[in-house]
Amino acid sequence: MTATRRDLIKLSSAGLAGVGLAACGSGHTTHIDKPAFVLVHGAWHGAWTWQKVVPELAQQGYCSLAIDLPGHGLNAKFPSSYLERPLNAANFATEVSSVASVTVDQCADAVIAAVEQLRSGGFEKVIVVAHSAGGIAVTQAVERIPSKVAAVVYLSAFMLDNGQSALAATALPEGATGQVPLLLKADPAVVAALRIDSASNESAYLSQIKSTFYGDVADSELPAIRNLLTPDSPIALGVTPTSKTAAGWGSVRRHYIKCTQDSAIPPALQQKFIDTADASSPMNKTVVQSLNASHSPFFSVPKNLADTLSSIARSLP
Amino acid sequence: MTATRRDLIKLSSAGLAGVGLAACGSGHTTHIDKPAFVLVHGAWHGAWTWQKVVPELAQQGYCSLAIDLPGHGLNAKFPSSYLERPLNAANFATEVSSVASVTVDQCADAVIAAVEQLRSGGFEKVIVVAHSAGGIAVTQAVERIPSKVAAVVYLSAFMLDNGQSALAATALPEGATGQVPLLLKADPAVVAALRIDSASNESAYLSQIKSTFYGDVADSELPAIRNLLTPDSPIALGVTPTSKTAAGWGSVRRHYIKCTQDSAIPPALQQKFIDTADASSPMNKTVVQSLNASHSPFFSVPKNLADTLSSIARSLP
Repeated sequence: MTATRRDLIKLSSAGLAGVGLAACGSGHTTHIDKPAFVLVHGAWHGAWTWQKVVPELAQQGYCSLAIDLPGHGLNAKFPSSYLERPLNAANFATEVSSVASVTVDQCADAVIAAVEQLRSGGFEKVIVVAHSAGGIAVTQAVERIPSKVAAVVYLSAFMLDNGQSALAATALPEGATGQVPLLLKADPAVVAALRIDSASNESAYLSQIKSTFYGDVADSELPAIRNLLTPDSPIALGVTPTSKTAAGWGSVRRHYIKCTQDSAIPPALQQKFIDTADASSPMNKTVVQSLNASHSPFFSVPKNLADTLSSIARSLP
Repeated sequence: MTATRRDLIKLSSAGLAGVGLAACGSGHTTHIDKPAFVLVHGAWHGAWTWQKVVPELAQQGYCSLAIDLPGHGLNAKFPSSYLERPLNAANFATEVSSVASVTVDQCADAVIAAVEQLRSGGFEKVIVVAHSAGGIAVTQAVERIPSKVAAVVYLSAFMLDNGQSALAATALPEGATGQVPLLLKADPAVVAALRIDSASNESAYLSQIKSTFYGDVADSELPAIRNLLTPDSPIALGVTPTSKTAAGWGSVRRHYIKCTQDSAIPPALQQKFIDTADASSPMNKTVVQSLNASHSPFFSVPKNLADTLSSIARSLP
């Protein structure tokens, strides 16, 4: 008993490389004109986020590779207090996270690794798609390898200004109605993570999870989604200032897919990201499309989302 | 192939954008010679099973599509007693499953849909890979569309005889040391599911989960794996007699990857599957390879597994 518990805690230290969900390639040609996608999930989610989108893209002829960021999906680590039920809320509010040391650069490494894997497979044009907090890592990845990214797509994602952190962005007036803070079960500064109780069975909290992330997703689908969530997302994704340049990130073709019913990142904040980016890169403006969807169009309108992504792929030169 | 051409023409005339060209692998032709993989998980698991294998295949130039079977992954349904902690063991042992009505044919439908999606994308050669109980669904899928499957690969999977069920197979002398029964928390006949407590925090039970499925997987990786498991696998996967013919299933090139340290499906039972299949299809014998691995080589030796799968792809005519 004790040994196992100790193991569970000890276990939580090592990181795993980001890995992918579906991919394609060719061994016969070294150059493939058709773009391929790297798909990057947001906080508390994993590669499974894209499970309904990947087959839609495949059927339209597009290869995609969905990854687990460090600290997420198969790379997740859990506070020991989370694994004991009923939950001791005081312990859960204070136990330092096992993903506390994950950095944005490590998350960007995982994105870059996936881009390189597709390129090794022969894809010359790789489109990187970020959802929500995935945008923080993707911006840094694109800044590091701008010439290897054919386009970057932010799906209701944090497209932060240089020097800006995600928590600073959500504190803007345009972020005032964002509901994520209502889900946090610990002070991020105390536990070094953005911590939710993904295993809660309290009906009010479950309703808040739905309202924040999945407003247009059928209730019947939510238990399976919640089962795959993990409680801790690294604090670095909240507090690390973005570091980007006009010559790097600003030089890459970029798209934003607004989710107009989003309660996690309000549409006004999404627009603020677009306006700020366009002011910083006036010669390379964001191409904007919209989905009438919550924060999770990959669950509520996966075919519409895949159609939007494929239209972006077709728009590339 | 004509079927692929027909599909492409049909899709194009329906006005779907981006379908006219081949999928992953080439933007220039409608025919892709390089095989693609459909990856099918076992009981209690989901598409995430293959998360470390897919990028390895991609880097070797192979496209793959991992699916969630009905009742698994994003399609999972939970007994209400499972969601309440501490667990009421008596209720958990008697509450009828919400996946009770899932049939093997429905699981086969999901496999066939993935094969068709890849074929629509331009892949002429689709290899279907089944792990564990995924083999039950895959055998029925292959029986229904033998001409559309270039090869079927059983990875320590149930490759059942005609008329045989999985529970009957595990009752054979060769299955005597299989440890899965030690994990079951309910009589399958009572709850209409194969039910485990994937959210348990009892150290003896967690040790048994490791011993059964993940003997060679690092302890540090197990909490994230267990977090993604689901408790109920449909009873149909246990009790449905296999229905297959020499002209259908028996005509398809087949491979078996034995896991020689497997505690869930003992190596002797894996060999029994091979011997029985070869006796029923003596003109089309199983091609056998082995991995020195537990029941979960996709976690413990993902690169070796990907190498084995790519060697199978290269061996196709």
